[in-house]
Amino acid sequence: MNKFSIAIHGGAGTILPALMTPQKELLYRQALTDAIAAGAAILEKGGSAIDAVEAAVVSLENFPLFNAGKGAVFTNKGTHEMDAAIMNGLNLEAGAVSGVSSIQNPISLARLVMEKSGHVFLSGTEAEKFAKLQGLPFQLPEYFYIEERYKQWQDLKDSDSYQLDHTDKTEQGEKKFGTVGAVARDVHGNLAAATSTGGMTNKKFGRIGDTPIIGSGTYANNNTCAISCTGHGEYFIRAVVAYDISCLMEYKGLSLAEACQMVVQDKLVKMGGEGGLVAIDKHGNIELPFNSEGMYRAWQYAGESIFTAIYK
Amino acid sequence: MNKFSIAIHGGAGTILPALMTPQKELLYRQALTDAIAAGAAILEKGGSAIDAVEAAVVSLENFPLFNAGKGAVFTNKGTHEMDAAIMNGLNLEAGAVSGVSSIQNPISLARLVMEKSGHVFLSGTEAEKFAKLQGLPFQLPEYFYIEERYKQWQDLKDSDSYQLDHTDKTEQGEKKFGTVGAVARDVHGNLAAATSTGGMTNKKFGRIGDTPIIGSGTYANNNTCAISCTGHGEYFIRAVVAYDISCLMEYKGLSLAEACQMVVQDKLVKMGGEGGLVAIDKHGNIELPFNSEGMYRAWQYAGESIFTAIYK
Repeated sequence: MNKFSIAIHGGAGTILPALMTPQKELLYRQALTDAIAAGAAILEKGGSAIDAVEAAVVSLENFPLFNAGKGAVFTNKGTHEMDAAIMNGLNLEAGAVSGVSSIQNPISLARLVMEKSGHVFLSGTEAEKFAKLQGLPFQLPEYFYIEERYKQWQDLKDSDSYQLDHTDKTEQGEKKFGTVGAVARDVHGNLAAATSTGGMTNKKFGRIGDTPIIGSGTYANNNTCAISCTGHGEYFIRAVVAYDISCLMEYKGLSLAEACQMVVQDKLVKMGGEGGLVAIDKHGNIELPFNSEGMYRAWQYAGESIFTAIYK
Repeated sequence: MNKFSIAIHGGAGTILPALMTPQKELLYRQALTDAIAAGAAILEKGGSAIDAVEAAVVSLENFPLFNAGKGAVFTNKGTHEMDAAIMNGLNLEAGAVSGVSSIQNPISLARLVMEKSGHVFLSGTEAEKFAKLQGLPFQLPEYFYIEERYKQWQDLKDSDSYQLDHTDKTEQGEKKFGTVGAVARDVHGNLAAATSTGGMTNKKFGRIGDTPIIGSGTYANNNTCAISCTGHGEYFIRAVVAYDISCLMEYKGLSLAEACQMVVQDKLVKMGGEGGLVAIDKHGNIELPFNSEGMYRAWQYAGESIFTAIYK
């Protein structure tokens, strides 16, 4: 019972070997390994699950190829609007932000919302005022400028279409859901979940996806599981995906694997909701289900190696 | 099975007879009756639950004494930031908005988000652009100016405190959670839920409560129930209140009454989460549980009278 485990994702979608170069794949696998290592370093020393998921997501937010933090995609206005959420399974405390633009690590802002604001969910430029008061690092737009992302936006900006993610080319049927997330169980048996996203390329109207919605994109409860989702957020909101898995375990007695199977491979598929999630139960078991072509993911059980995977 | 039913609320909290005048109570009861009548008129003609809950909430939004629409409270900046959500139990489609300022009826914007945006959740001034494109009625700040609300804000604006609702006086321990909402079952057996709020007096940092969070403040599913909540939103988010009731029915086989009892009178009370909700199940049974001193509420079963209630 005193073993930790940790799992992360860097987004799901139509991620196919044919669309990848060996160099790029190596970069992705290194970034996934680094993020697991950042979280595991805390867990190995007896640190908390909440510290570990924050550290893992900060690492993913700082890697430019994932759509979160530094790698956030451009909105229709040429800006960056990021969402994030974190939840502590020990006390069901939670923090979330939406539509923040200049924060280096939105997940750390979500953590401060949880611990210092008296609220759960803050939004927009007003949330940035809270971040300033808390002394969080801000970045100028240059920090978030990545040529590949800019080109993706230029390809779409005069159209009405938006892109669910950071694809190299808007090829027919290709979709990626750019989000990063982490779940962990610490040696004390506490669970936590964290999720962060840069949203959709060319998005309009202040759209908010499932990432900052407690119960949909992010949820943690020591009695059941911790969940971080990535996918077509509208479906994940309507299906209340993260809490659904928790309820299937708590009220119906399903295992984590059975609950994940039912929600990701059955319910979401029937609705048309593409994506996946990483999940961990109170015993430390890890599941990484997805119904798309691929999902950037990695995981580690205490005392074992770090595993990374991208395709099915 | 072909009978309709409808229930609404106008907020919960420390609502005590000693703090009410007979004239004001009459106004509240008339407003509640009018809102039920607006929804029931649709249901009686065989109209849909989704049309009925929208009509009932529009009626409540237009009544200045409830904290939603016209009666929305002032933020720390002296503005109005309103949130709303709607969900159709027939197809699990949902729409939500947060932080909109000039929309006469935020619930109608949530409905248009559900039907016309391709998204579920839009926010802020960007969401207002979507509303303009859809031709929704806007209002100038004067429309939302209500002297009592302005005084409430003046009492708080130079402080760091915020008020969870529209109380006449910030008396010790007095709290009201200003939200309006409706749930309905139509004669075709379809369920729907709608919720709208003006947030908290003197609120800062773009705080979002449970109202626009699908699964927390608002949820509808023909297989289980429709729910609209009012209360201390942070707790309702962390407890995923609306979907929790649905899951207790679907996965644990509880009745609507049993599920409401467990969530509102047990789980929320243990967390410290004050408030209540209106709920309707697929058979048309209505529940109106709350753990606060009072909740403005009304309900009607087809062929019966309209009932209104305020206190325990």
